[in-house]
Amino acid sequence: MVRLQKSPNEIYSGIEAGGTKFICAVGTNPQDLIIKRIETTTPQKTIEEVIKFFKSYTNIDAKKRIASLGIASFGPLDLNKKSPKHGYITKTPKPGWSNVNLAGKLSDALGIPVAIDTDVNGAALGEQEWGVAKGLDTFIYITLGTGIGGGGVINGGLMHGLVHPEMGHIRIPLDKDDIQDFKGSCRFHKCVAGYGCWEGLASGKAMQLRWGKPPEKILKNDKDYHRAWELEANYIALGVYNLICTLSPQRIILGGGIMGHPGLLEKVQGKVEKLLGGYISALDSPVKFRRYIVRPALVNKKSDVALSGVLGAIVLAKCMRND
Amino acid sequence: MVRLQKSPNEIYSGIEAGGTKFICAVGTNPQDLIIKRIETTTPQKTIEEVIKFFKSYTNIDAKKRIASLGIASFGPLDLNKKSPKHGYITKTPKPGWSNVNLAGKLSDALGIPVAIDTDVNGAALGEQEWGVAKGLDTFIYITLGTGIGGGGVINGGLMHGLVHPEMGHIRIPLDKDDIQDFKGSCRFHKCVAGYGCWEGLASGKAMQLRWGKPPEKILKNDKDYHRAWELEANYIALGVYNLICTLSPQRIILGGGIMGHPGLLEKVQGKVEKLLGGYISALDSPVKFRRYIVRPALVNKKSDVALSGVLGAIVLAKCMRND
Repeated sequence: MVRLQKSPNEIYSGIEAGGTKFICAVGTNPQDLIIKRIETTTPQKTIEEVIKFFKSYTNIDAKKRIASLGIASFGPLDLNKKSPKHGYITKTPKPGWSNVNLAGKLSDALGIPVAIDTDVNGAALGEQEWGVAKGLDTFIYITLGTGIGGGGVINGGLMHGLVHPEMGHIRIPLDKDDIQDFKGSCRFHKCVAGYGCWEGLASGKAMQLRWGKPPEKILKNDKDYHRAWELEANYIALGVYNLICTLSPQRIILGGGIMGHPGLLEKVQGKVEKLLGGYISALDSPVKFRRYIVRPALVNKKSDVALSGVLGAIVLAKCMRND
Repeated sequence: MVRLQKSPNEIYSGIEAGGTKFICAVGTNPQDLIIKRIETTTPQKTIEEVIKFFKSYTNIDAKKRIASLGIASFGPLDLNKKSPKHGYITKTPKPGWSNVNLAGKLSDALGIPVAIDTDVNGAALGEQEWGVAKGLDTFIYITLGTGIGGGGVINGGLMHGLVHPEMGHIRIPLDKDDIQDFKGSCRFHKCVAGYGCWEGLASGKAMQLRWGKPPEKILKNDKDYHRAWELEANYIALGVYNLICTLSPQRIILGGGIMGHPGLLEKVQGKVEKLLGGYISALDSPVKFRRYIVRPALVNKKSDVALSGVLGAIVLAKCMRND
């Protein structure tokens, strides 16, 4: 993807803009990266902090100029380059953040060109450049955390189309072992008539609502432990299965906090295999599923912080110079 | 898509290979097309008939040479160009047709290069070249007939990835108004625990199984009429909704015999709008849905025969010259 030869005095900046934190970075690759974590509060305060960080970098190392900024952001976003609202966060459930001109404000304040895409498309780009999607031209990256989102690369290009995918909102059936009157956590797509959206049934927010505690607190000595994680694996597998049938990806990367639960990935691999029922002959053994449904590779080993998104933002920043 | 300038003495051949019929054509575009319908029987007999037709054409008009053949076929297919079984129909439920070297046999017998893709990818190509997908680079074509299949173009390229999509097999919930112990018609994905696959619940075969008669026989004076078509619209809408969330296509083309039912398309448009619940701001009015979910344009007006597939096969034949 990266076509630009870095000039020795140029460096890039990237942001993974999330609902709870903005991961900001200056650098060129996973081995050359200065990272700053900023809490997501109000748009004004958060954006001010971001600007302060990037400006302070310029002051430290005046020899290296930040050439551009890439943003991998939560959404929905307006990504239509012809739209007057290109680079805006549009109608987000996150209070205060609807209709915020994220790309424009940062470009104006920093005086550099800005490229923006979804957090999950960004993470996919990062994994394609340095991680588990090297050499692939059709794959997806799913994040399973507070919410569920999906993006990826198809035929070598990021997934956009009409707007950008909203994979977390596909409708899936309420599991027979779930609480049968569970309404789900999505305010757009309530679980009724036996089905809800993927995010509404399987996100961290859904788990919090269903079990009265967040996924990281549902531990081995908990009475709900077995049922909670079996159900979660069922829902993740069903969503992943649907994405396989729809897109025929060469690989599926499952990131996000929920996937940190020990044994969950392996459970999901097994359940997806069972759901396919041998229908896709290219996936005819458990070994193939272990290579097919995988974790992201770009993680800070010490802090366990996921870096796919912010590294993808760096790739966005590098690539835009060729637009 | 078509990059080749036709030489005045070159013409192309195409086949839409279906489970009940092979539509064969010689020509260059919708206005210049000789069509022959051949019943699908055994592979040997069907392929012999196809060869006979294309050879007879060469005899009629010796001045024009058939340069290549495109095939838009039912599947699953092996489309991996590096595979020794490229161009084979692989493990199909259609008796006798598994492991048939469709592309290779025709190429050998006719002495011309052959390009092959899925029937739905072919139909998408035809509609992109001459129909309702002109100028789009990300859209899908769904056929709703005896089975359900989907394909399309993403970022300007046909959908392939690991193999090719199997959109008919996404899992969707059993409708609360359906027969609650209905097992569906798909032998790979039985409807259990409240959900089945799209094809198993909503194909012509599923309707036949559920109501004891095929869709075209469920008419206004039938006692099941209202329930059958309301249910069918629900299932189609739910599947289309999931494809929108996953792919964010710029347009969705719904073809196949079932979509010929009067009023069904309009019902589906309304139900998809309701399922989205205003989540995608680019689709904020009923008018937009009427332009978004559409019928194919390439239909023989006199005979009502769908031509998207065979015309897409002609496009495949034209394009392969540049491979």
